[in-house]
Amino acid sequence: MKKKVISLGDVMMRLSTPGSSRFTQTEMFNILYAGSEGNVASALAGWGVHAVHVTRFPDSDLGRAATASLRKFGVDTGSIVYGDERMGLYFLENGAMQRSSKIIYDRFDSAFAHIQPGMIDWSEVMKDAQWFHWSGITPALSQGAADVCKEALLVARKLGVTISADINYRRNLWQYGKQAIDIMPGLIELSDIVVGGVTDFENSLGISVSDFEMGCKEVQKKNPAVKKIANIHRESISSSHNKIEGLLWTGKELLRSQQYDLTHIVDRVGAGDAFMAGLIFGWTNEKTDKQTLEFATSSCALKHTVEGDVNVCTVQEIESVLNGINVGKLLR
Amino acid sequence: MKKKVISLGDVMMRLSTPGSSRFTQTEMFNILYAGSEGNVASALAGWGVHAVHVTRFPDSDLGRAATASLRKFGVDTGSIVYGDERMGLYFLENGAMQRSSKIIYDRFDSAFAHIQPGMIDWSEVMKDAQWFHWSGITPALSQGAADVCKEALLVARKLGVTISADINYRRNLWQYGKQAIDIMPGLIELSDIVVGGVTDFENSLGISVSDFEMGCKEVQKKNPAVKKIANIHRESISSSHNKIEGLLWTGKELLRSQQYDLTHIVDRVGAGDAFMAGLIFGWTNEKTDKQTLEFATSSCALKHTVEGDVNVCTVQEIESVLNGINVGKLLR
Amino acid sequence: MKKKVISLGDVMMRLSTPGSSRFTQTEMFNILYAGSEGNVASALAGWGVHAVHVTRFPDSDLGRAATASLRKFGVDTGSIVYGDERMGLYFLENGAMQRSSKIIYDRFDSAFAHIQPGMIDWSEVMKDAQWFHWSGITPALSQGAADVCKEALLVARKLGVTISADINYRRNLWQYGKQAIDIMPGLIELSDIVVGGVTDFENSLGISVSDFEMGCKEVQKKNPAVKKIANIHRESISSSHNKIEGLLWTGKELLRSQQYDLTHIVDRVGAGDAFMAGLIFGWTNEKTDKQTLEFATSSCALKHTVEGDVNVCTVQEIESVLNGINVGKLLR
Amino acid sequence: MKKKVISLGDVMMRLSTPGSSRFTQTEMFNILYAGSEGNVASALAGWGVHAVHVTRFPDSDLGRAATASLRKFGVDTGSIVYGDERMGLYFLENGAMQRSSKIIYDRFDSAFAHIQPGMIDWSEVMKDAQWFHWSGITPALSQGAADVCKEALLVARKLGVTISADINYRRNLWQYGKQAIDIMPGLIELSDIVVGGVTDFENSLGISVSDFEMGCKEVQKKNPAVKKIANIHRESISSSHNKIEGLLWTGKELLRSQQYDLTHIVDRVGAGDAFMAGLIFGWTNEKTDKQTLEFATSSCALKHTVEGDVNVCTVQEIESVLNGINVGKLLR
Amino acid sequence: MKKKVISLGDVMMRLSTPGSSRFTQTEMFNILYAGSEGNVASALAGWGVHAVHVTRFPDSDLGRAATASLRKFGVDTGSIVYGDERMGLYFLENGAMQRSSKIIYDRFDSAFAHIQPGMIDWSEVMKDAQWFHWSGITPALSQGAADVCKEALLVARKLGVTISADINYRRNLWQYGKQAIDIMPGLIELSDIVVGGVTDFENSLGISVSDFEMGCKEVQKKNPAVKKIANIHRESISSSHNKIEGLLWTGKELLRSQQYDLTHIVDRVGAGDAFMAGLIFGWTNEKTDKQTLEFATSSCALKHTVEGDVNVCTVQEIESVLNGINVGKLLR
Amino acid sequence: MKKKVISLGDVMMRLSTPGSSRFTQTEMFNILYAGSEGNVASALAGWGVHAVHVTRFPDSDLGRAATASLRKFGVDTGSIVYGDERMGLYFLENGAMQRSSKIIYDRFDSAFAHIQPGMIDWSEVMKDAQWFHWSGITPALSQGAADVCKEALLVARKLGVTISADINYRRNLWQYGKQAIDIMPGLIELSDIVVGGVTDFENSLGISVSDFEMGCKEVQKKNPAVKKIANIHRESISSSHNKIEGLLWTGKELLRSQQYDLTHIVDRVGAGDAFMAGLIFGWTNEKTDKQTLEFATSSCALKHTVEGDVNVCTVQEIESVLNGINVGKLLR
Repeated sequence: MKKKVISLGDVMMRLSTPGSSRFTQTEMFNILYAGSEGNVASALAGWGVHAVHVTRFPDSDLGRAATASLRKFGVDTGSIVYGDERMGLYFLENGAMQRSSKIIYDRFDSAFAHIQPGMIDWSEVMKDAQWFHWSGITPALSQGAADVCKEALLVARKLGVTISADINYRRNLWQYGKQAIDIMPGLIELSDIVVGGVTDFENSLGISVSDFEMGCKEVQKKNPAVKKIANIHRESISSSHNKIEGLLWTGKELLRSQQYDLTHIVDRVGAGDAFMAGLIFGWTNEKTDKQTLEFATSSCALKHTVEGDVNVCTVQEIESVLNGINVGKLLR
Repeated sequence: MKKKVISLGDVMMRLSTPGSSRFTQTEMFNILYAGSEGNVASALAGWGVHAVHVTRFPDSDLGRAATASLRKFGVDTGSIVYGDERMGLYFLENGAMQRSSKIIYDRFDSAFAHIQPGMIDWSEVMKDAQWFHWSGITPALSQGAADVCKEALLVARKLGVTISADINYRRNLWQYGKQAIDIMPGLIELSDIVVGGVTDFENSLGISVSDFEMGCKEVQKKNPAVKKIANIHRESISSSHNKIEGLLWTGKELLRSQQYDLTHIVDRVGAGDAFMAGLIFGWTNEKTDKQTLEFATSSCALKHTVEGDVNVCTVQEIESVLNGINVGKLLR
Repeated sequence: MKKKVISLGDVMMRLSTPGSSRFTQTEMFNILYAGSEGNVASALAGWGVHAVHVTRFPDSDLGRAATASLRKFGVDTGSIVYGDERMGLYFLENGAMQRSSKIIYDRFDSAFAHIQPGMIDWSEVMKDAQWFHWSGITPALSQGAADVCKEALLVARKLGVTISADINYRRNLWQYGKQAIDIMPGLIELSDIVVGGVTDFENSLGISVSDFEMGCKEVQKKNPAVKKIANIHRESISSSHNKIEGLLWTGKELLRSQQYDLTHIVDRVGAGDAFMAGLIFGWTNEKTDKQTLEFATSSCALKHTVEGDVNVCTVQEIESVLNGINVGKLLR
Repeated sequence: MKKKVISLGDVMMRLSTPGSSRFTQTEMFNILYAGSEGNVASALAGWGVHAVHVTRFPDSDLGRAATASLRKFGVDTGSIVYGDERMGLYFLENGAMQRSSKIIYDRFDSAFAHIQPGMIDWSEVMKDAQWFHWSGITPALSQGAADVCKEALLVARKLGVTISADINYRRNLWQYGKQAIDIMPGLIELSDIVVGGVTDFENSLGISVSDFEMGCKEVQKKNPAVKKIANIHRESISSSHNKIEGLLWTGKELLRSQQYDLTHIVDRVGAGDAFMAGLIFGWTNEKTDKQTLEFATSSCALKHTVEGDVNVCTVQEIESVLNGINVGKLLR
Repeated sequence: MKKKVISLGDVMMRLSTPGSSRFTQTEMFNILYAGSEGNVASALAGWGVHAVHVTRFPDSDLGRAATASLRKFGVDTGSIVYGDERMGLYFLENGAMQRSSKIIYDRFDSAFAHIQPGMIDWSEVMKDAQWFHWSGITPALSQGAADVCKEALLVARKLGVTISADINYRRNLWQYGKQAIDIMPGLIELSDIVVGGVTDFENSLGISVSDFEMGCKEVQKKNPAVKKIANIHRESISSSHNKIEGLLWTGKELLRSQQYDLTHIVDRVGAGDAFMAGLIFGWTNEKTDKQTLEFATSSCALKHTVEGDVNVCTVQEIESVLNGINVGKLLR
Repeated sequence: MKKKVISLGDVMMRLSTPGSSRFTQTEMFNILYAGSEGNVASALAGWGVHAVHVTRFPDSDLGRAATASLRKFGVDTGSIVYGDERMGLYFLENGAMQRSSKIIYDRFDSAFAHIQPGMIDWSEVMKDAQWFHWSGITPALSQGAADVCKEALLVARKLGVTISADINYRRNLWQYGKQAIDIMPGLIELSDIVVGGVTDFENSLGISVSDFEMGCKEVQKKNPAVKKIANIHRESISSSHNKIEGLLWTGKELLRSQQYDLTHIVDRVGAGDAFMAGLIFGWTNEKTDKQTLEFATSSCALKHTVEGDVNVCTVQEIESVLNGINVGKLLR
């Protein structure tokens, strides 16, 4: 029987300029539908997991297109609800070399931001689920979204569903009167697995440390439910060239994955979500912590080779790369 | 010396599906920047008029792209102001045959909707102007926009600038607590030239008649300042095939233009704005009422042959068509 | 609870030249995945029906892409099986005016053509189903496909599932040693609803008549199980301009739908499948025969306005067109 | 053994705006290589004729691309010569409905315009040839081109090669100091077959008549070598809709082809060349005058259904259309 | 007089995803026509060689498009034969960084696979030829293709035509009941020049060595007719970054070319064919072994800079690169 | 008040092959309008400078499109004049790795090449100007262009406008009978700021030195008006990878900027113009020589990250890069 993983979060229309075009140059946008938690669900669905994504879309052709996009990835869209408001959007301009990539968000007032407790029947949604995933973007969008997130977490804990949280701190969200530090501690304390780095710890949890390992220990001290903490360490040489390495604090020790040299980046958006999806896949498939970390980091690396927010590479491709098999060969 | 025409109104990013694609099918949008009053200004600028468009854009790459687009048409963008909010958007799906074209607006909360009296120095903007043009879309967007529109009208009247109004009634705008009937009469009474039909008269002016000519007489009775009233009469055989005819109430008689059979429509959005621009061009160039009406209707017809909201056809092309010269020939 | 409709048939990769390009001119193909019965399922899924499509795909990225495409339309792909062989293909060149559209099939030896009885657990698939749909293309592909079709029909009859058959006679299929006349009578006699015209009756059932109504009576005489027979009557003025009308023999009388003048055809492939889907939708939703015929014919007409084999228009759009509401208007 | 047909003339790079875009809107051009006489050669090569096109290209990548394009059509490019000058160009904007199509030529000073007598070994080129084709564009380009044209005609006559001439009068060519009336009579008098209408007769031959048949008789009176005269009669309802009919003066009587209603024109450039090619094909394949005229007119009609200057439709397609077989059907 | 080189082999339609798109993401394919031996012929034709490619295509628009494509490259297509079967296809997904490029072949049952001895008049084709080229792909496709290959080799030897063989071992071909080791030795023993590496030697010739030079000596020992053996040594750092070096066993010594660092690969398919073409060009133009190897390796390197299977770079460009002249400069 | 900068020079239509396509492969060109001095004006306009570009265009849709393009960048086009001749063109093929980029110019006989003294009212144009910029391309095009350049320089000197000159030596221009060495010394001696390298000094000024600093001293010795000399030092590793460094001779010392490693070049055309624009921006904004050099070199580097001839990056982006802030980060 398939593993069942539940995720919650807004999915936006992504409008990206073609090739190296800038916002001020383009006469067209490529579009697709994406959002941090939905990206995790989409990757997992592609790997054979029963991934249920919960969100709220406008009851319009754009909302229907977003649902169809998730279905195409294989995500179970049966728990999505619909409302009157607008589709959240984000505009993406791909950088090159010394020129940075840029995102302009236009997501306030989206149908998801208007979600309210009671709209989702969480007991029904979480039935038979192994895992629930949320990220710090959801409580940043509106009080309603924060409340729904809490509502879900309480049901998940009650049902013994494992909970993962990607802190995903973004300063320019949190516009509805609350700050991350007001809300996130109460949500993280309900979570089993956390992804984040020292900046996330400081802004969302009030933990100021300069070292990841020290930070992990502090997070666990304050949040006894948290069992493991992971993060991607990224070195940005240019928009076209990064190096990444995965880190995992197992509760006892700090594991490091092999490093990947990403010399010709195709699209780096969603790389963190590919890492998150890899962690969930590893642990729900009884991989060891080390195997899970290597799988997740390889997933993250391969995400940089494909367009879009979702890692559409297969389990076999991810494992080939982490094992150094056929890398860069022409497969006939 | 060039004629100077001022216009006021929001300019949105237009995102249209390519060819016959539907919203639920497309993976890209063609984009350009458009809005009823800015379309009028753009057409006029292309015909050699000094057209100044007044609007408010977000202070972002998208706002800068919109300004650049107006500049490309030759519009004077020196009076545009910038603010913090978002760019208004509209999504367009082109119909075909029995399938209707569809527009999804996403324009609430745009930078323009946040315009407030005092932001524009109207005395400066209107200096040496012949004409001021506004439409019923502006007061429909927000109280601030309605107030700025009134502010502009009062300055225009004081300076003796001719005022044209396109009633442009759209039921699903007017969401800020006021209805057209609350606001429009106070603006139309300040205007010299009006474009509208019986539906506009009923919804925006409270004048219920079934006949255009009767309606025009009623409008003038209630609004002594209004001198002339024009409209396009359109017969929609299908999304691909329409017939149009221009009507002009001169205050004394009803003139009718020749009819145009539009058998292979390329893009009908902005056709009313092309008509409006033609009227302004005719009257500011001392054409007779009949000549002005024929020019405006030919402009409207030619707009259906080009993509985008703006009639990019030249004065010479418009006059060739209305005179039946070289129509449909291959010009080498 | 949703209606459940089962369909069986090959789904191919469709490779179409862009715009008016010919096979000998093009440097690219637009692709999508399509096949007569899967098109029916896709339209039904878009209208809210629980549509389960049964097929066999190659276990490759192309097979996975085909599955994802069906999922995007909302089709339940849980009963699809996978094998080693190739993806069936068809190449499409769109005609214009006097130049005919052309299809080059490259579908022999597809994974579906290698389907064998026993590969599908029909009792499981048909559980709780209202309807089973098949077409004459399936038995034309291979002995195995013909056998699986029979296998499905027998289970459907046993479970009391209504059966629809689209005769879909194509001379250049039937290459495996059998002719339509050898196989089709044994399958049609198990069906409740038939779509076909006089050519189909002659080639697939051995019934030679020149008149549709007479043919229907003959079909029923030979096949007592058949309750209703429908067809689209098409007049091809050119590749760009057709007229269509729906016909339905109710068992008692011949009903005719309103006629549609299709003056600017976008894509006529799949129009028959849109008609078929409309019939199934009407009858499973307790519409009368007349309502069902009008719905199906309007669905067929609207299919000509969209690219691809599938009618992606909504129930509301189909009903607006058949009721003459807003046809060809710009909907804002 | 294949028929051998020789043609002479400049081949330009054609740069056309995509879809309905105007010159002032486009950010790209579709390109191909075309010219009146080369278009004739390309159509003939597609129909199995050994078509040798003689021209002069710049010795650059653009010249090589033009040669490759002719080769792709199957034209024998072995007699092309190369020089230092530039590639001739023409820019094409496709019209729609009332908006005319426009061509901007940029062809002066092309490598072909610098051709000089002696550069082509005509005795070698014309060996075993049945037919030589030239048009009035060549002598219009430069004195050198006019001289080379005469040089070719004299060799052709000496060798008994049939000569066809398309008068193709274009007022805005003829910029090198000579007018058509100075040059064309001396070339037409060497030709066997002429294509042209009353405007061509007047401007190029000084024959002023209002009626085609009368004009033909006058042309023959002055030019005893001319045996037959043909033309396309075109009615331009709009850029999207034309009607055409072929006319042929056999020397004894005026034949008229069936009329074609071209309701959705894809690209009308090169239609005259498709007619010319059809005439040459008919007569070199022993068709009667009537058959030849019908073939040529059907070829002309089908040209309007394809992009580019060349009729890429096959002999079978042309004959199906003129016989009314399968017109507008979907051929599977 | 031009050198005449004959090649034999299937040419497929290549369908490649645009940019970095994956098979499961794309909605279009770029197409061109390619195959190992035809790629060699196409490169040679571009360099001024009289290259005759022999193959068998379906008698359809797709077969005609393939022929036209070869003609565009300048290949002599006069010896191609046509039959009823299908066009072979291959699908290509371009990799990026750690993600490998993938090819899905769909070439079984192609018209070429149905070629039979007697279909080609080899004595006629080989008249005046200097060189005949074949590869190990042809005998892998079918018994008929293997027989035709042998037939050609025997005629070539009889006429004293130099024979080159590219072993090109591909495990997943050879599906018709024979293995490479059954067929290839009998064909290689008739060849003068061989391209291959240690894997090819092992699988196709049964020679197991770990070192190229040792392998060459063994090949020559077993095949006295073989005079020279060459290969590309490739280091695959990633899909985007390779290093290559050419190796040539002259019969006496092992020559090594300069190494090329290919840091931003555009398209690596056909690189081996560009090397092969370079060898043939060098030796038929009386270059020394060292010059020939450097030319061939530079040709191989430049192939990685262009899209498609064929090296479309000129002789002058190849020589500039191998001499380090203007490399990477902007040439105005 | 805005700085006012005047520039003079031809603006061509640039036709570039898409992606990595070669001239002999492409079926389309991307177009934009560009030229060395207009590129400088466009960059400056984007940075808020009042940039007036003076040129002469054909009075056609192409000339109007070129004007519109400059307007889109914000350039003041009010001083452009129009004439009868053609638009200058250049064709661009982007290189990759070892394959060089290529430009084919087709600019002779352009409307600008026909410019004559007296066509521009320089006293009016230069009113209130701070700066006049010209380059060595203008006097290379025609005697008229050289004369107009001199005319402008004399007015500028008289009015005390600072003059910058980009020597821009191109051997294959200078076709009208004069060589650079005949004309350039008389123009450089009127200039304050010079951009050029040792090759430029030799060919345009007759100064033969092997070292930039020595050359600068010689230039100043001969041209006392010249105050500062700058250049970009470029190392071309491949078409995809360059390193650049800016050099500035202040009259007293040689300053060097930081070096930029350009590892994934998007488009290097116009990089020198971006450097030139950066110098003008720096000095007209009271930056120090060192700050100006760093700004100009960062501008040059960023130009390599965008398509087109113009640096469309903002002042803030340029300063971030030179200060190493957020380089290669994803900015949300």
